[in-house]
Amino acid sequence: MSDYFGSRNILITGGLGFLGSALATRLFQAGARITILDNLNPLYGGNLFNVRDLKDRVSIRIDDVRKIDVLEPLISRSEIVFHLAGQISYIDSLGMPYEDLDLNARATLSILECCRSVNPKAHVVFASSRMVYGKVAGPLVSESAATNPLSLYGIHKLTSEKYLLMYFKDFGIPVTILRLTNPFGPRQQVKHDKYSLVGWFIRQAMEGRVIRVFGDGSQLRDYIYVDDIVTSMLKCTAAPDAIGEVVNVGSGRSTRFRDMVTAVVKQVNRGKIEYIRWPDDYEKVETGDISVDISKLRRLTAWAPEYSLEEGIRRTHEYYAKYLEHYV
Amino acid sequence: MSDYFGSRNILITGGLGFLGSALATRLFQAGARITILDNLNPLYGGNLFNVRDLKDRVSIRIDDVRKIDVLEPLISRSEIVFHLAGQISYIDSLGMPYEDLDLNARATLSILECCRSVNPKAHVVFASSRMVYGKVAGPLVSESAATNPLSLYGIHKLTSEKYLLMYFKDFGIPVTILRLTNPFGPRQQVKHDKYSLVGWFIRQAMEGRVIRVFGDGSQLRDYIYVDDIVTSMLKCTAAPDAIGEVVNVGSGRSTRFRDMVTAVVKQVNRGKIEYIRWPDDYEKVETGDISVDISKLRRLTAWAPEYSLEEGIRRTHEYYAKYLEHYV
Repeated sequence: MSDYFGSRNILITGGLGFLGSALATRLFQAGARITILDNLNPLYGGNLFNVRDLKDRVSIRIDDVRKIDVLEPLISRSEIVFHLAGQISYIDSLGMPYEDLDLNARATLSILECCRSVNPKAHVVFASSRMVYGKVAGPLVSESAATNPLSLYGIHKLTSEKYLLMYFKDFGIPVTILRLTNPFGPRQQVKHDKYSLVGWFIRQAMEGRVIRVFGDGSQLRDYIYVDDIVTSMLKCTAAPDAIGEVVNVGSGRSTRFRDMVTAVVKQVNRGKIEYIRWPDDYEKVETGDISVDISKLRRLTAWAPEYSLEEGIRRTHEYYAKYLEHYV
Repeated sequence: MSDYFGSRNILITGGLGFLGSALATRLFQAGARITILDNLNPLYGGNLFNVRDLKDRVSIRIDDVRKIDVLEPLISRSEIVFHLAGQISYIDSLGMPYEDLDLNARATLSILECCRSVNPKAHVVFASSRMVYGKVAGPLVSESAATNPLSLYGIHKLTSEKYLLMYFKDFGIPVTILRLTNPFGPRQQVKHDKYSLVGWFIRQAMEGRVIRVFGDGSQLRDYIYVDDIVTSMLKCTAAPDAIGEVVNVGSGRSTRFRDMVTAVVKQVNRGKIEYIRWPDDYEKVETGDISVDISKLRRLTAWAPEYSLEEGIRRTHEYYAKYLEHYV
């Protein structure tokens, strides 16, 4: 990692969030020179506590990824741009259509336009989502599966992917697109239940509350621990064959939703599970089972995720047992 | 047609343009009550001359489809919305990325948001494009083919399609998506060569100029005469089974580009053809051969396009021989 990333200039949009700060921490350890751009929008996961150990050793710019005059100078001096900033809730996207468009599609276009005009060699790595697939028919979803997103969040992530592939083909801007499944781990927001339920449920359990599961909770998900996501992202970024490619990033392991909840309650050793009816607005965007094919990730990186769901939950619980006050 | 469209309230965005005005004319004949919304942007094809026969018998609003306060009252009283307004050049889209995003994607989102809030029963019919496919691998492109657009124009048309399908699934708003191939005919703009070259070449030939063909002009295209497009659009709109569907609208006949040019020169009996190298910016977005599968259109409408390319060119020439001064 140090060989590839050491002393590189790297921009991370959304770098104060869950994934961004984990990425920044690892890249800092590898010797990279890091700039973080984050607007600390209270709806999303940005939190200065996430980078408390890096604070004076990375450059932090609190500003908005939608502003070209902010982006352009930052991109002009970056070799790699991890574009993670975005509206993060597929549920909320229906209630804020224009903001979702701006943050999850237009901002990617702005980044690419900046690259095109001031730095076409900058490598843009984009955090896309399994949500681009929508409801999945087959047993294992590979990157070539049909993309029928059920939410504006998924539509705009897909639009961003198309931008990236087009700017790669037409202008030679190197891009890598990572379709993340269900990431969880320390530093994720636990203020509300709109994103990454593992963390939210850990908090609920820690507070001895009732955890509500919609339906029978039998839907399959692919949970991936944040350290594994970060390793995958960095390995894909360093893989020349991943340039211009879309890559599924998941654990390659499917878990029933209710089994994740059970594992949380067991680990925390508090809380109670209750099964309730699906609310209408959730059911509309519910994707059903998803099992993600990660053979491309394995092939490109010669590596597979390492942490079990239980171990990930244990580490996440340990983190919030120490630091919950900074996340509520 | 009168049975279905007679006395219906119909909104046509971009209704002063090539397709919009042809649609308005036919719908007027069928007895519909028509409102046209068009901003007469000089870059596109809007032209009051296009509706000279309808002028006092339809409601014309010169304004911008991007304004919610303009859209909302118009949509609230419409039973059908033909959404044709847009940035129309896939070549130009690279030079005006944000405008293309606003006009070809965001405006569709606004229309759907207006439907959702004030009139969820309004049937939205959208003019999409073969450009959503990009370079096509197989011999005949059906609606389920992969969508890998090569231009921002194509990306944003695809984004609009995804919006429409999502609002249909999630909110029950009836939508029909028509992927148009290469329309041509009377009323199309002939001011520049950025859109629908048949008309531009007819003008070039009429003025005795040299018509420049890129490469050897062997690429296949599916040209469809405007009267056939309008009939297809109306038949699809009236077909209950086309709700929530994407439908290719073409002639079902492939013609080599150079054969179209030869037919133009032959019909006009002036002008000269010259073969030149592909310019870089055109080559990047060139889709190669395209032969469109129109079996779904045939199945849904029990009908197929009627005009031959030669007959269409003859009629278009006849029109511009009379009215060219209004289009230059």
